[in-house]
Amino acid sequence: MKEGIAGCLNAVKEKTPLVHAITNYVTVNDCANILLAVGASPAMCEAVDEAFEFSQIADALYLNVGTINREQQMAMFMAIRGASLKGIPIVIDPVGCAAIPSRISLIRKLSHFGSFTVIKGNLGEIKALAGVAARVRGVDSLDTGEDGLEVCRHLAQEFGCTVVATGPTDFISDGRRSYLLRNGTEMMGRITGSGCMVGALAAAFCAVSDDPCLASAAAIVTMNLAGELAAKAPGGENPGTFRAYLIDQVSLVDENLIRKRGQIECQ
Amino acid sequence: MKEGIAGCLNAVKEKTPLVHAITNYVTVNDCANILLAVGASPAMCEAVDEAFEFSQIADALYLNVGTINREQQMAMFMAIRGASLKGIPIVIDPVGCAAIPSRISLIRKLSHFGSFTVIKGNLGEIKALAGVAARVRGVDSLDTGEDGLEVCRHLAQEFGCTVVATGPTDFISDGRRSYLLRNGTEMMGRITGSGCMVGALAAAFCAVSDDPCLASAAAIVTMNLAGELAAKAPGGENPGTFRAYLIDQVSLVDENLIRKRGQIECQ
Amino acid sequence: MKEGIAGCLNAVKEKTPLVHAITNYVTVNDCANILLAVGASPAMCEAVDEAFEFSQIADALYLNVGTINREQQMAMFMAIRGASLKGIPIVIDPVGCAAIPSRISLIRKLSHFGSFTVIKGNLGEIKALAGVAARVRGVDSLDTGEDGLEVCRHLAQEFGCTVVATGPTDFISDGRRSYLLRNGTEMMGRITGSGCMVGALAAAFCAVSDDPCLASAAAIVTMNLAGELAAKAPGGENPGTFRAYLIDQVSLVDENLIRKRGQIECQ
Repeated sequence: MKEGIAGCLNAVKEKTPLVHAITNYVTVNDCANILLAVGASPAMCEAVDEAFEFSQIADALYLNVGTINREQQMAMFMAIRGASLKGIPIVIDPVGCAAIPSRISLIRKLSHFGSFTVIKGNLGEIKALAGVAARVRGVDSLDTGEDGLEVCRHLAQEFGCTVVATGPTDFISDGRRSYLLRNGTEMMGRITGSGCMVGALAAAFCAVSDDPCLASAAAIVTMNLAGELAAKAPGGENPGTFRAYLIDQVSLVDENLIRKRGQIECQ
Repeated sequence: MKEGIAGCLNAVKEKTPLVHAITNYVTVNDCANILLAVGASPAMCEAVDEAFEFSQIADALYLNVGTINREQQMAMFMAIRGASLKGIPIVIDPVGCAAIPSRISLIRKLSHFGSFTVIKGNLGEIKALAGVAARVRGVDSLDTGEDGLEVCRHLAQEFGCTVVATGPTDFISDGRRSYLLRNGTEMMGRITGSGCMVGALAAAFCAVSDDPCLASAAAIVTMNLAGELAAKAPGGENPGTFRAYLIDQVSLVDENLIRKRGQIECQ
Repeated sequence: MKEGIAGCLNAVKEKTPLVHAITNYVTVNDCANILLAVGASPAMCEAVDEAFEFSQIADALYLNVGTINREQQMAMFMAIRGASLKGIPIVIDPVGCAAIPSRISLIRKLSHFGSFTVIKGNLGEIKALAGVAARVRGVDSLDTGEDGLEVCRHLAQEFGCTVVATGPTDFISDGRRSYLLRNGTEMMGRITGSGCMVGALAAAFCAVSDDPCLASAAAIVTMNLAGELAAKAPGGENPGTFRAYLIDQVSLVDENLIRKRGQIECQ
């Protein structure tokens, strides 16, 4: 299994997938830089007149509703249709949907324009999307519960896709197979954008794999291992420095590190 | 007085206030990261269809017109009304209003949809808002004059709120009581976003205090002390490194530092 | 020639030109910080109702279509007209035009509202704009060909302006005189925003010089030399750290460094 995960990472570096992202403007720079760091190629294109065409030349589409506005919303409908027609993997990040219920409707409406490959949120967001009571503060999840896997499994079956719920333990399920990932650091919660960056990476990894469940696990393990190293480096206990180190370390994760440090459980 | 200021900082860390920010896209990432660094929870939500509802679940609202566009403008009217109905503190940052007079009209129009708790700008912006001749270059103030306190006091009386004018000396007044703060470093003028970050912090501090004048002073002292430490750290004399260290240091400011280093004068 | 280039850099530091930028939201923070680092003053103002007036008080206008949307597009038409009426230098950055052909039409339409001073893109973008076959991946150029100078020269003659094509060798031509610049580091391709930052710097340099060809060369040499130093500093081989160091080093480039390390060929 670790071979498969390392294989995804190597494939990203080899193939340099082009990731079309329509994402929030808070962390868009971090998303672009982490995609470059892992070996992918980012392109943020969100004009309503360009999104349909651009998603058709991309290798994956990443949609993040964190600061959705009217034009972004229209662009997402265009992009998801374009990606869908070309069979390009689509990763959706329902940021804030637990605090802003209208985003749940938006996500569901988007799903009628193309099939999601992966839904990735924090546990609070995934619960909200699944109609389960969630504990959140704004865009942050206060939920850490071990019922996460069950919720992922159900939502995966409903949408017919892979579902990822991040947290102290990360849960991934495609409805049948599941992963529990136990790497990471609490420092990732002390900067903005950790979740967005993981979502962008998941899109890059799905672009080079036929197995979105494994590819998502590979993206998250890569991010989590990078986070662990960044937090341990001198100064990495402080958020401003940690943020720079996190990008550094994502560029350095390799199969040896995954083999040695990855805490991955498959069910 | 230093006890009150340290008390505000501790209350932020304890209560993790949710700050709803509609802010410029140049420094939005810095604002989110500095809010996390101080112990608050940032949420940037600016869809015109979401802003009214979201401001009602937040603990404070921060509005910054730095890159105002049409949708943001509409969202601000919605958010300020929502916040006002719930009695949530509202901090407004009139970025660039000295160079772009239409922003003065916008600020005044916004004030009819809800009462500002704090108006925070650099001295040039505060003067422009008060109708006093100001020396600016684009969004930067070239004014350092000691008439700042007088201008703050008048504007505070006009709007019935606290007014903050930042600069080498920071002036704060609620029309009766005033603070003069003399910490800080010229490095804060060598990166973009220092002013925006202070504004976002002021919103977080107002969320946990009944005294906006004191809370604003606490936010600025926290930022200024962090700036002093960041500038003195190895490499902190250079802007790229300073920017990362500033976020680091904001997470480390505590009551001891405020007591030892804070240069705060109350009038 | 190196004297002229160093002279531009010194003039920026002395005159602090105000650069009005309407640019993509991925790298806008980097653009603002690098302008401050070199000694210029950034102002990002893109409201359709403000752009005409604001471009008239600025010293240069920088337009970057990287994440163009409808309001930005309208604002660009307003700003370019305003700048043109005042004779303010206009630098246009056709990000992504090789992958998104509608951006070529947009650039050409913009040129009817005001004369460009400089067109700056990577080689793939410049080729696409010139109607020559280009190899790109999204916003990145895969072209390094030595035909770059020829393409720049032709495009410069067509538009009657200076054209810059960045890459391992940077080509600059105003149709008669040309520069080939051979500084830089591959690290600049491992972060997002290198191209945008160079474009923003070019605008600042054009603001203080009557010679846009020389001013563009000065901007690129400044950036490339800073990149070389940043890459060599401890940790600079990693992208997150490199990004901070790059801003640091731009603030430190001076005439001595240009004289000692600049690899500049004039034809």
